[in-house]
Amino acid sequence: MNSDELHGLLVPVLTPFLPDLRPATDAMVKHCNWLLLQGANGLAVFGTTSEANSLGCDERIELLEALIESGIPADRFMPGTGTCALTDSVRLTRHAMELGCAGALLLPPFYYKGVSDDGLFSYYSEVIERTGDARLRIYLYHIPAMSGVALTLNLVDRLVNAYPTTVVGLKDSGGDFQNTATLLKEFPGLSIFPGSESFLLEGLRRGGAGCITATGNVNPAGIRSVIEHWQEPCADQMQGKITRIREVIQTYPMIPALKTIVADHRREPDWLRVRPPLMELDESVRSKLIGELGALGYSMAGSGSAAAA
Amino acid sequence: MNSDELHGLLVPVLTPFLPDLRPATDAMVKHCNWLLLQGANGLAVFGTTSEANSLGCDERIELLEALIESGIPADRFMPGTGTCALTDSVRLTRHAMELGCAGALLLPPFYYKGVSDDGLFSYYSEVIERTGDARLRIYLYHIPAMSGVALTLNLVDRLVNAYPTTVVGLKDSGGDFQNTATLLKEFPGLSIFPGSESFLLEGLRRGGAGCITATGNVNPAGIRSVIEHWQEPCADQMQGKITRIREVIQTYPMIPALKTIVADHRREPDWLRVRPPLMELDESVRSKLIGELGALGYSMAGSGSAAAA
Repeated sequence: MNSDELHGLLVPVLTPFLPDLRPATDAMVKHCNWLLLQGANGLAVFGTTSEANSLGCDERIELLEALIESGIPADRFMPGTGTCALTDSVRLTRHAMELGCAGALLLPPFYYKGVSDDGLFSYYSEVIERTGDARLRIYLYHIPAMSGVALTLNLVDRLVNAYPTTVVGLKDSGGDFQNTATLLKEFPGLSIFPGSESFLLEGLRRGGAGCITATGNVNPAGIRSVIEHWQEPCADQMQGKITRIREVIQTYPMIPALKTIVADHRREPDWLRVRPPLMELDESVRSKLIGELGALGYSMAGSGSAAAA
Repeated sequence: MNSDELHGLLVPVLTPFLPDLRPATDAMVKHCNWLLLQGANGLAVFGTTSEANSLGCDERIELLEALIESGIPADRFMPGTGTCALTDSVRLTRHAMELGCAGALLLPPFYYKGVSDDGLFSYYSEVIERTGDARLRIYLYHIPAMSGVALTLNLVDRLVNAYPTTVVGLKDSGGDFQNTATLLKEFPGLSIFPGSESFLLEGLRRGGAGCITATGNVNPAGIRSVIEHWQEPCADQMQGKITRIREVIQTYPMIPALKTIVADHRREPDWLRVRPPLMELDESVRSKLIGELGALGYSMAGSGSAAAA
């Protein structure tokens, strides 16, 4: 991991929507700033949690420009730029680099299933070469439960060898820490991020770069505290605390659950809105979630570190 | 099925590519015209077989315009317009209707998995209402092996009841004829197309509308002959013949195999090209495929009907 790369807590920022389902730019800017103040190291906008795959290419371009024009430093961003179409992925990746983003998080093309490592290598190669920007830093995105296309160790190895200064990291949202541990062992030069803070401390102890996690939207200070104190005796206790919060949230559909927590915290019911095919949680389910989190002593404004006070 | 709707053989037209992987418009126009001359009733461009999900939104718009400007009647087209993003799907669907296409074939949004029928209903409703065109005719596209999102009988029922003049058909590429048979029984007013000619005759005998099939790209006359003669004694024999051809082809990766057959027939190796993540077949595999089809007496120029002579 090079010092100029993003590491620590990266948050796949939720995308709020207006009543007509356009992105609510102002609310998103506000949330991004809050996340950074709470200790997030970077903003992995347009991730799975961001409902990015429910946004069009033009919408993503306009929204990223608006976020950066609002004053948030471009080098805090690691936007998701992988789509199922080569040309759209190139367009989004090039745009992100032109704006000065720290890197791009790239899904594999996710419509066609059962594709070969040769085909995926060719795809990523085309994206890199067509983007044609020496500043390009790519983080591979392994999330087979959604994409239906796994990134094998063989593929990662080929890409890292072919593009050693460009392919610099990987987000492992496979949910299997053994795979993350193998990646950390096999690719010590890569910035490896587990896709859940449940594996944060274990990952850090094996050389991990931090985590990129959905629940970073609602518990950034708690998660950041583990990153700050991972070599101290209190680390396991801190990890236990953030894991318990995660475990409650992930028993609900993740994205509407996170939006429920933000809406409750800000008293802004507009935050509940999701784009189809996702659905808001019913009112009774929302109350149950908020109640369960309250019983854990959780509050979005202040859990676990001074930054959250 | 209304008389003004497309029925019979609809072909998800292969998309040829130039060396830089842009769509090869002229070659596609030529192939479309050949398909219609061979007896295809309609052109389901931008289907799975068309590698449409490897094309960007702008590319699809430009290519459809070029095909129609070439002189092919707009009412022969049923373009795929379903993407994973609501806004892109609306844009493509509206564009297709404005150009006068007969209908649009709509995938469900296919990134997020485990979504509810409520969420899918909401998605299709938004597409229909935002398209806002009384001419809109939607054909639902069930292909769970690729999309990862199945269209349930409950969802189809809700959509047909809510939009009886708009949701007029369904392509069933689930590969399970029992599901197709159930759809035909439950929704006699819908145009139901099996996604493979293997089920063509059985489908027609139960009121099916024809088929929308990848191999229609290379065996349109043979498939059309079954549609022409399905009530005659020779129908089973004709069905057997097209099924045997299909069975050979589908032991290979479908899209590069079909492009191999077209390239061989036209002596145009440019037709071999696919977009990543797909890969061309190796030369030895291509030879084996062509050899196996030759042993069946198959030839792309003339199998099964006068139209192919």
